[in-house]
Amino acid sequence: MINFYLKSIKNQPKVHGSVCVIGLGYIGLPTAALLANRGYNVIGVDVNKKVVDIINSGNIHIKESGLDTFVRAAVESGRLKAYTEPKEADVFIIAVPTPFHENGYDIPTPNIDYVISATKSIAKYIKEGNIVILESTSPVGTTEKVAEILAQERPELFKTVNSEGKKNANHQSLIYIAHCPERVLPGKIMNELVENDRIVGGIDKISSQKAASFYKTFVSGEVLITNSKTAELCKLVENSFRDVNIAFANELSMICDKYGIDVWELRELANRHPRVNILYPGVGVGGHCIAVDPWFIVADAKKEAKLIKTAREVNNYKTEWVIEKIKNEALKFELKNKRKPIIACMGLAFKPDIDDLRESPALYITRALKQDNLNILAVEPNICEYEEFEIIDYTTAIETADIIVFLVAHKEFKSLITNHQSLLTNKQILDFCGVTKLS
Amino acid sequence: MINFYLKSIKNQPKVHGSVCVIGLGYIGLPTAALLANRGYNVIGVDVNKKVVDIINSGNIHIKESGLDTFVRAAVESGRLKAYTEPKEADVFIIAVPTPFHENGYDIPTPNIDYVISATKSIAKYIKEGNIVILESTSPVGTTEKVAEILAQERPELFKTVNSEGKKNANHQSLIYIAHCPERVLPGKIMNELVENDRIVGGIDKISSQKAASFYKTFVSGEVLITNSKTAELCKLVENSFRDVNIAFANELSMICDKYGIDVWELRELANRHPRVNILYPGVGVGGHCIAVDPWFIVADAKKEAKLIKTAREVNNYKTEWVIEKIKNEALKFELKNKRKPIIACMGLAFKPDIDDLRESPALYITRALKQDNLNILAVEPNICEYEEFEIIDYTTAIETADIIVFLVAHKEFKSLITNHQSLLTNKQILDFCGVTKLS
Repeated sequence: MINFYLKSIKNQPKVHGSVCVIGLGYIGLPTAALLANRGYNVIGVDVNKKVVDIINSGNIHIKESGLDTFVRAAVESGRLKAYTEPKEADVFIIAVPTPFHENGYDIPTPNIDYVISATKSIAKYIKEGNIVILESTSPVGTTEKVAEILAQERPELFKTVNSEGKKNANHQSLIYIAHCPERVLPGKIMNELVENDRIVGGIDKISSQKAASFYKTFVSGEVLITNSKTAELCKLVENSFRDVNIAFANELSMICDKYGIDVWELRELANRHPRVNILYPGVGVGGHCIAVDPWFIVADAKKEAKLIKTAREVNNYKTEWVIEKIKNEALKFELKNKRKPIIACMGLAFKPDIDDLRESPALYITRALKQDNLNILAVEPNICEYEEFEIIDYTTAIETADIIVFLVAHKEFKSLITNHQSLLTNKQILDFCGVTKLS
Repeated sequence: MINFYLKSIKNQPKVHGSVCVIGLGYIGLPTAALLANRGYNVIGVDVNKKVVDIINSGNIHIKESGLDTFVRAAVESGRLKAYTEPKEADVFIIAVPTPFHENGYDIPTPNIDYVISATKSIAKYIKEGNIVILESTSPVGTTEKVAEILAQERPELFKTVNSEGKKNANHQSLIYIAHCPERVLPGKIMNELVENDRIVGGIDKISSQKAASFYKTFVSGEVLITNSKTAELCKLVENSFRDVNIAFANELSMICDKYGIDVWELRELANRHPRVNILYPGVGVGGHCIAVDPWFIVADAKKEAKLIKTAREVNNYKTEWVIEKIKNEALKFELKNKRKPIIACMGLAFKPDIDDLRESPALYITRALKQDNLNILAVEPNICEYEEFEIIDYTTAIETADIIVFLVAHKEFKSLITNHQSLLTNKQILDFCGVTKLS
C-alpha cells in the first residue's frame, strides 16, 4: 500500500529546486522525506547529531506509519541528506517545536525561542528569490517576527524595490515569507501531508502566492491563500473550537452526575435537534494539539479569550474530577470489605484505538491512583510494555479487579462488553468514556 | 395553505376525550387550538380575563402565523372554550411562563411560582387515570415538584397499589405525570407542534408511556421516551449548546479585532476543517430561549456549569463591546468634523428576517446609543412603527447617516449591499453581523 503510494508520488511531473527543512521531528521529517521523493533535493537540518546520523543511515527516530519507507527511499535516492547546520536552498521550511515556557508564567505561555534561533541559523544562507515558510504552530504575529529577524540579519534583502514607471515605491522584500500551519493527524501523516487542504498566509500578497505555488507542487488538497496572522490564528482556532466543544460535553457529564442523569442518553436525545451536535464526554483532553493550542490564544489575548480559557480549565478539571470519583469508590469498597480494592484502569492512551500517550489524561489518572497507593492494574491493548506500570492483558485485569474503570473507549473494550458481558457481572464498573453505553 | 393544513388535521382518525390547557400564551394557545381541531374537547385556562374573552370571541391576543385560523375554527366548532378557572378533563397540560426572579439573586434564577400555582389550581379537578403534563421550560426536578404538590393536595391519588399476586408493593400513583418540553420556533409554531420530534419524560415508566400515547395522537414526528429529569435537562442543554457555540463565534470576533484579522475570512477558512463548524458572530444573543435557558442550568449547578456561565457572560459582553466600538467611532468622527455624527442602526430584531424584539441585543444597543445622546436613526425593515424610536426607511437612513452600523443581517440589507453598493461609498461602515461579508 505505502509502496504503491510512494511510487505515485515519484511518478508525478518533475519538479526542480532544493528545500532546506529545519527541525526533523514529527512534521519536519515526514515533509522532508515526502519532498525528496517528490523530486526536490532536500537538506534536512536538526540540532541533534544522533537524529542526523540515524536519518542519514536510512532509518528513523520517531514512530509514524509509512515514514520508514519514505525516509529509506529518500536517502537511497540521494535526495535527502541530513546535517546539523543549514545550507543554501530555494525554499526554507521551519518546522521546529513551539513548546511552553517552563517557568515564570501563571498560565501556559508559548515559547518561540526555537523559531527565533532557527530563523537566525538560516539567515546567512538566504538569497534573493528564496521562500521562507514557518510550519510550526505559532502565536499570532510569529511569522512577522521571523520577517523582522531576517530584516535585521539581512537588511539588503529588505530594500524597497520600485515597480517600474510608478512614482510610489512599492515596498517589498526580495524574499518571500509565509506561514503554512501543519494540520496532520499522527498516524496518517504521510497521506495527510499530500491530501489535506493547506492554508498559506504570507507577510504580503506576493509571499502568499509564491509559497502557495510551492505547496501546489506536492499537495493534492486545495491550497487556500490568506495573510500570515489569519493563517496563524486559523490553526489555533480550529483546535480551540474542538476543545470548547469537548469541554461542553465534559461539563455536561458532571452536571448529569449531579442530577443522577445518564449523560449518554441525554446526549443522544439532545442531538436529535437539527442544530445540536454534542461530542462525547471523556476523562479530559490529551494529545499535542487540542490540549495545547488554545493556550497560544489565551496567553496573548487574556482579556478576550475567556470562553477558550474556561474550556481548558473545564477539560483539565474533568480529569481531577474522575480521580476523585475513583478514589471515593475505592474508599467505599474498603469500608464495606475491610480491604483495598484492585482497580483495573482500562486504557492509557489519549484517545481510542491509538498507542499515543502524549499528555494523556488516562495515563495521568492511572499515575495519580498509583501515587495514592491504590492497587491498580494498568491496561492498554495498544501497548505491550511501559516503563511506569506493568501492562496487564485486559481479560485478566477484568477477572482480577474489584472495580473496573473505563478510561478510554478502545474497540477491544467495546467488543468485550458486547461479547462477554458475563465477565462484568458482580464487578463494580465506572464508565467515564461511554464504552458500556455506545453501540 | 394554512386552511389545507387545518383540514388535514381535522380529517385524521377520530380521537376521544378532553384536555385542559393551563396558560394560553405562545405555547398554550397554539396547543389548545391544535388539539381542538384534532377533535379533543379543550378547556383553555388563563388567569387573564381579557385573554379569555378575546379567545372565546374567536380572536387572538398574540402574533403567530396561522394561529388565528386555527383558533377561529376551534372556537366555531365548539371544541375550544376558554375560562379563568380549570375544569375536569382527561389530560392537563401546564404551559405557564417560568420567568426569572426579579430580585434577590446574584445571577438570573428561574421562578417556578406560576407552575406551582397552576398545579395547585388543577389539583381538585384531577381524577384517577388522568395525565398531567408540564410543557413549560423548567429547571431539573420541577416535574417531580409538580408530583409532590399533587401528592400533598390529593394524597388519595398517590396510594400505593399492589400488583396482583406479587408480595412487594408496586409503588405507583393513580395518575400519570410527565414533562414534555416545547421545542417550537416562533413563526412556525402551528407546523412544528405537529411535525417536530417530542421528548416525553415521566416521573415513572407508566407515566412516560401514557403521556407518549397522548402525543402520538397529534404529533407526526417521533415521540422519544425518557424520565422527567432527563427531559427537563435536555431542553436546557440544547439551547446551552447553541449559546456556547455562539459565544465561541462572538469571542473569536473580539480576538480577531485585537489582531486586525477579518473574522469572516478566518471563520470560512477554519470551517474547511471537517470537524469545525464555527457559527456566525453577531451583536449578542437575544430571544426567549438561547439567552434564557442556560441560566436555568447555571442557577442550580453553579459549581459544575462554568463553561455555560462563561458563554452567557461572553455573549452579554459582546453587546457592551459593540456599544463601546460605536461610541468610539462617534467620538473620532466628532473630533475630526467638529459635529456629532448621524448613526444609522441597521436592524432592531433579535435575529435576521423576523420582527421579534424580545431580549434583542440590537434594540439594547440602539437604546444605549440614544441614551448617550447620540443622533441615531433606527432601522428595522420588519417593523412599521415602534414606541421608542421613529422607524426610518433603510435607504433614507443610509443616505442621511455618517456612520452606518449593521446590527442584524436582514435580507434587505444584504440585497442593498449587493445591488446598490454606491449608496455606501464615502460612508463609514461598522459591520457587526457580516452583512457586507456574507454572500
